[in-house]
Amino acid sequence: MIKTDILIIGAGPTGLFTVFEAGLLKLKCHLIDALPQPGGQLAELYPKKPIYDIPGFPEVLAGDLVANLLEQGKQFEPGFTLGERAETLEKLDDGTFIVTTNKGTQHHAPVVAIAGGLGSFEPRKPILDNLAQYEENGVSYFVKNPEQYRDKKVVIAGGGDSALDWSIFLSDVASEVTLIHRRNEFRGALDSVEKVQELKHLGKINLITPAEVTGLRGTNALEALVINKEGEEFLLETDHFIPLFGLSPKLGPIGDWGLEIEKNAIKVDNTLDYQTNIPGVFAIGDVNTYANKLKLILCGFHEATLMCQTAYQIINPGKKYMLKYTTVSGVDGFDGTKKQAPKPVVQAIV
Amino acid sequence: MIKTDILIIGAGPTGLFTVFEAGLLKLKCHLIDALPQPGGQLAELYPKKPIYDIPGFPEVLAGDLVANLLEQGKQFEPGFTLGERAETLEKLDDGTFIVTTNKGTQHHAPVVAIAGGLGSFEPRKPILDNLAQYEENGVSYFVKNPEQYRDKKVVIAGGGDSALDWSIFLSDVASEVTLIHRRNEFRGALDSVEKVQELKHLGKINLITPAEVTGLRGTNALEALVINKEGEEFLLETDHFIPLFGLSPKLGPIGDWGLEIEKNAIKVDNTLDYQTNIPGVFAIGDVNTYANKLKLILCGFHEATLMCQTAYQIINPGKKYMLKYTTVSGVDGFDGTKKQAPKPVVQAIV
Ligand SMILES: Cc1cc2nc3c(=O)[nH]c(=O)nc-3n(C[C@H](O)[C@H](O)[C@H](O)COP(=O)(O)OP(=O)(O)OC[C@H]3O[C@@H](n4cnc5c(N)ncnc54)[C@H](O)[C@@H]3O)c2cc1C
Ligand SMILES: Cc1cc2nc3c(=O)[nH]c(=O)nc-3n(C[C@H](O)[C@H](O)[C@H](O)COP(=O)(O)OP(=O)(O)OC[C@H]3O[C@@H](n4cnc5c(N)ncnc54)[C@H](O)[C@@H]3O)c2cc1C
Repeated sequence: MIKTDILIIGAGPTGLFTVFEAGLLKLKCHLIDALPQPGGQLAELYPKKPIYDIPGFPEVLAGDLVANLLEQGKQFEPGFTLGERAETLEKLDDGTFIVTTNKGTQHHAPVVAIAGGLGSFEPRKPILDNLAQYEENGVSYFVKNPEQYRDKKVVIAGGGDSALDWSIFLSDVASEVTLIHRRNEFRGALDSVEKVQELKHLGKINLITPAEVTGLRGTNALEALVINKEGEEFLLETDHFIPLFGLSPKLGPIGDWGLEIEKNAIKVDNTLDYQTNIPGVFAIGDVNTYANKLKLILCGFHEATLMCQTAYQIINPGKKYMLKYTTVSGVDGFDGTKKQAPKPVVQAIV
Repeated sequence: MIKTDILIIGAGPTGLFTVFEAGLLKLKCHLIDALPQPGGQLAELYPKKPIYDIPGFPEVLAGDLVANLLEQGKQFEPGFTLGERAETLEKLDDGTFIVTTNKGTQHHAPVVAIAGGLGSFEPRKPILDNLAQYEENGVSYFVKNPEQYRDKKVVIAGGGDSALDWSIFLSDVASEVTLIHRRNEFRGALDSVEKVQELKHLGKINLITPAEVTGLRGTNALEALVINKEGEEFLLETDHFIPLFGLSPKLGPIGDWGLEIEKNAIKVDNTLDYQTNIPGVFAIGDVNTYANKLKLILCGFHEATLMCQTAYQIINPGKKYMLKYTTVSGVDGFDGTKKQAPKPVVQAIV
């Protein structure tokens, strides 16, 4: 059982910044995310694209913003349960919560902050017989750990940035990379398309277009794919098949937790602290809704900050917290680091 | 008469970010500030100190954050009335407003956003006979334009960072810089104290401590100061006297505009858009108050963003605004610039 002060569901920008604000109040956080990496929409949907409306950044790449937020929170040593979906929420008699994932991992905390964005990112799966049977045995929808593919044969399917970028990346790791797409045309960043073209010419990526995977073969683990290229079917031996057909966010299990839902989002009290109808459960960032809500990154930052104040009250009943400026009081990391502005000196000039 | 869409009172971080958010909605802003430079508390009180709780910045110097916010808003060509205090607010029959400063400058706008922080920064003045008479004739409390002091004699009084830093800066501009302080000890950044010490040894700063200015002399403009050093009085010729005894923020005239005031701040409706009891007048950032308000920079950013949405409705009645992501739609500057993420290509790989 993982124990923490604030259990955060969703490691997007809102969840990540919560770690920092909670840390200032000496509260520890643990994050659950269905994706294999933190960053939410920014990391999964547009890591290399610039954002122009983060205050103080005339321009910042989404991936860099995620890296900065991780760096900012690092000193507060957040825990992560990645690649798992929060499935159930149980309120115990003492008012604390247990959240269990689809893989059975249990988390216990007095405060739950749902920062689930548009929902848990679920892969769009191809429609193939016996797909489920191979899911832990050769078929995966994310690249969690590229080393897993070292010196293996890999087939990637898809026509967008993920398919292009992982083909490029794995061409240096796998023994053989095949990229399959149902059209000849790919849609992605110009430099990714050009790189795949180059690697194809160098023989480092094997391209099969227009084509589709129509079957899976293998006794226990995946051994080969049935490929249909312009009406003709053939077998292709492979160790791994990674269909990258995009992800769609689904509010999913959170919708069944007894929370008030409106417009596919969780209704919260925006007059105070973004608490839901279940005391102790908050919803912040894209996942919540209230009058005049804007689904913007900067709004999640504010909501997270206000939420942490009430979380502090719940965890330290009766204790009063005085707001301190980081510039004045510094930042005390849980890892022993201390950030602090240089102190002024009082010194005679003679 | 200066005309604009949103008239912003206060050019602190909240006011500056409003320029950007309003610009995304094609609304133009003009800012009034009592200080000679934008940046509010950050520029005036702690420009060289680090802030640790701006989302996405593990550390940023206050002065750099202000520079970044100016850069981010630049493309929307904000107007500035600096060094003037907004004195009166008048609501016209058509629902628009006229705001007049202490120097008589008039501004006309359909929406007023008060981003006045802790109030208008007013200098702490020394108690000296005839001080007011010299205020535009040799005595000033801010350095607005350093070139004004080129090849002049300047006396600075004070014992903190401003006195130290302006003495250092003007030692390269003025023909003579004298620094007077009632103690031998100065309180400031170590490098500033050391630099003044060095410039004193080089004869570039004339130091008189412990001493006080006790009188002003001059027929029309200032010509000399009476100095009392350890009980002995003497005259010191000078063209300029700049007492830098700190600034204290005063809500000031805004308190008389008929706005609902609570805890020395303006009460707003935080459930919607941070509007005050006067429709069309908003209060954002440190200057407002509501249940659970936190006087933090990041909160002002969120408040400004929500406020702009209602400002848009007031200025474009009946028109609907669809939220657009800057990453997807780019940013169209009023100055003809266009920021935009590189578009994906659709291209065959052969
Ligand atoms: C193409 C694009 C461009 C954009 N441009 C901008 C822009 O310029 N400016 C801007 O402000 N915003 C922009 N946005 C919106 C911005 O990305 C979102 O506002 C932001 O990501 C919300 O952050 P969040 O942390 O609330 O949620 P998210 O980033 O959505 O993260 C939520 C995370 O929660 C996880 N999750 C949800 N439910 C569960 C569960 N049950 N179990 C485990 N994990 C779960 C999800 O997997 C996800 O990783 C853009 C969005 C897109 C798609
Ligand atoms: C030493 C110190 C350290 C701090 N550290 C942090 C920190 O680490 N993190 C954090 O989030 N916050 C910190 N703060 C607080 C932060 O500076 C404020 O939250 C922030 O400045 C508020 O921004 P604002 O734009 O609302 O107002 P301000 O920055 O106060 O700007 C308001 C401006 O309005 C002007 N004004 C007011 N009335 C009038 C008028 N009638 N006419 C003309 N001009 C007017 C003022 O002159 C001023 O320039 C710190 C503050 C101090 C003093």
